[in-house]
Amino acid sequence: MQRKKLNIGLFGFGCVGFGLYQVLERTPTLNATIKTICVKDRHKQRPIPADRFTYHKEDILGDKDINVIVELIDNADEAFEIVSAALRSGRAVVTANKKMIAEHLAELIDLQRTHGVPLLYEASCCASIPILRNLEEYYDNDLLESVEGIVNGSTNYILTKMASEGLSYDAALKEAQQKGYAESNPLLDTGGFDAKYKLLILAAHAFGGILKPSEIFNAGIDRITPLDQQYAREKGLKVKLLARAFKKEDGTVSAFVSPHYIAPTDRLYNVDDVYNGVTLKTVFSEDQFFSGKGAGAYPTASAVISDLSALTYDYKYEYKKVNYYEHITYSHDTLLKVYASSQSDYQADVAAYFEEVWEQFSNGRQCYNIGTISLGNYARLYAEKPVSLIVIDRHTTGEEVLAGVDIEALVATP
Amino acid sequence: MQRKKLNIGLFGFGCVGFGLYQVLERTPTLNATIKTICVKDRHKQRPIPADRFTYHKEDILGDKDINVIVELIDNADEAFEIVSAALRSGRAVVTANKKMIAEHLAELIDLQRTHGVPLLYEASCCASIPILRNLEEYYDNDLLESVEGIVNGSTNYILTKMASEGLSYDAALKEAQQKGYAESNPLLDTGGFDAKYKLLILAAHAFGGILKPSEIFNAGIDRITPLDQQYAREKGLKVKLLARAFKKEDGTVSAFVSPHYIAPTDRLYNVDDVYNGVTLKTVFSEDQFFSGKGAGAYPTASAVISDLSALTYDYKYEYKKVNYYEHITYSHDTLLKVYASSQSDYQADVAAYFEEVWEQFSNGRQCYNIGTISLGNYARLYAEKPVSLIVIDRHTTGEEVLAGVDIEALVATP
Repeated sequence: MQRKKLNIGLFGFGCVGFGLYQVLERTPTLNATIKTICVKDRHKQRPIPADRFTYHKEDILGDKDINVIVELIDNADEAFEIVSAALRSGRAVVTANKKMIAEHLAELIDLQRTHGVPLLYEASCCASIPILRNLEEYYDNDLLESVEGIVNGSTNYILTKMASEGLSYDAALKEAQQKGYAESNPLLDTGGFDAKYKLLILAAHAFGGILKPSEIFNAGIDRITPLDQQYAREKGLKVKLLARAFKKEDGTVSAFVSPHYIAPTDRLYNVDDVYNGVTLKTVFSEDQFFSGKGAGAYPTASAVISDLSALTYDYKYEYKKVNYYEHITYSHDTLLKVYASSQSDYQADVAAYFEEVWEQFSNGRQCYNIGTISLGNYARLYAEKPVSLIVIDRHTTGEEVLAGVDIEALVATP
Repeated sequence: MQRKKLNIGLFGFGCVGFGLYQVLERTPTLNATIKTICVKDRHKQRPIPADRFTYHKEDILGDKDINVIVELIDNADEAFEIVSAALRSGRAVVTANKKMIAEHLAELIDLQRTHGVPLLYEASCCASIPILRNLEEYYDNDLLESVEGIVNGSTNYILTKMASEGLSYDAALKEAQQKGYAESNPLLDTGGFDAKYKLLILAAHAFGGILKPSEIFNAGIDRITPLDQQYAREKGLKVKLLARAFKKEDGTVSAFVSPHYIAPTDRLYNVDDVYNGVTLKTVFSEDQFFSGKGAGAYPTASAVISDLSALTYDYKYEYKKVNYYEHITYSHDTLLKVYASSQSDYQADVAAYFEEVWEQFSNGRQCYNIGTISLGNYARLYAEKPVSLIVIDRHTTGEEVLAGVDIEALVATP
């Protein structure tokens, strides 16, 4: 079998771009070279000679010698411009930009079909974990029931610090920022938006439905209180931010992002720090578990390398489930077991959103309610009250209740 | 994309065969039906009507309507006859028979090339974990450094029982046999042979070298003593049977099967009962971890289903590393950190095999030595003395010592 030679035009030269540059030097058999690198800032110090760079995207997009575009810039709108122009020009593209993909997935699939060129983006979900390729190639049948996991490294680092060192959310966030694990504006991570973009991509490859970001409800970790942490400690649980998509008994799929209390028997319990972990449940084989570093220059660059390698064999996503399962519908009417903490004044207000309240605690200042709540009411409660919500049992997929909730109206934008 | 219709001839109708039959009924979009099932025993009670069975393999091999053979029988020699005849007749084959593949891998690759038909065998390694597909498709570059893991469910079940309930090896084995997790003649599992066959297959897809079973040293779990378990308890470790293949600094690869003491910080520590777990280390992305049920009718059948699904898209193993890395050589000269227990009388004899002894313990009846030993001397010691050997630190790949050991002369056959 003849491997195609790759002549790469690279957009962006941050951590991941430079990581890719270094990893490519260690993979001589890949038969891929970076011809041109396009960056924005002319004055930034670069770790490689200045003559490797251009500041004009046309120097890549207009170069007939370049047959692959790797897009590793931050800005999702600019990234979409570059990626769609590259696909229209008949070039294969590899990208790591989850926000861009999540916002434009249907369009990007159309562009690939129309122009007959592949777009690969394994690095966009869980960096080094080959989850998309597995969903696409290995779990391409009727048996997949759920894809759920810890898909954001920054928030997992913050939660790990809160649990292991008893830090407050603010102190843990500050430490994560100092270590470079969280942005100076951290809301994309801490608000669960980054996890939601990844979930949208995972769900498309797992179940075939292409959602809009506004159709997936996301709660973040930024409301977690010392009371919530105390509850975790006393019960021997950990708080983890999970992205979940699962098939329900009626065949519809639920997808949302929320903090969860996780028990030690759960595979995700030991996924700490910046690691990511994903479980896939199939009808016949119980949980499959994948974990690995979910962020960082080299893990992300390694995923880009595997995509480049796949391009040398003309690999493309077939979007098998998008093609075969167009009947999949998403539903927000799942019943969840939820812990909701707030100031004690709000206890009755909060309880009113629940289907059923099983336990109540108050110390006169803070309180919690535990019981069942529909995903729709969860989203409403999260939007309307100063409350911290943590799902208690991820293994309950719940029954149908309260149909017809308009999640879109409740989902915030970052 | 048009999916090919699969008309299956199935050999064998034990647990996995019946599991496959049931799983196929739940995967209508797969477009695969079992036309004929060939079994040996005419008098065995079957869970489906007798007219579905034949007792003549020619009823399948000679049927032009059948385009896929699924081989799920126990006997490795008969399996090889069936599989090679099927490949020669131009039929795609799916098998789960690790012993057969390990003994004939080079021939089977040749048959696939000569006759232009695929042989898939994901179910042969770690059942439900898609490890071969990942090695073949995702880790197909220069960066993979090691593939190591718990790949045998029976022994892991026995070791888990020994650790959690303080059972002796014999008592735990008996319980495993009663539960159907171990054969009445358990040596294939307990002696580490099954793990070795899987390791041979994993190493071929990971590094491209095709070894013979006799070239891989395997120690089993059947020598583990109460003293070894006490050591594990006191140090907070677990004993796990690991199959390991890793690239050394000189570019050669070491491959062997041995009990290991595993620390709680190791991802494999929590892989208990019949679960399997595999870690892949790459130069740039640290450990990737995969786990799932490693045995059982449904997990194995699910892997067969994924292979069948891949056949509908004309998937085949490209053996990319066999093609690109023919220069890979295997070496047995790795230095290991090893704990060796025996009767106290043997302490000096055993110590003589070590490069260096760091710790010695004796209570007058039993003793242990801890130190460094070459893999060659480990194999020699295992063959020559009544000793229980447990590798202490799987994260040490060691230096080169004592070149030129003839492992083949030391490796037992089951």
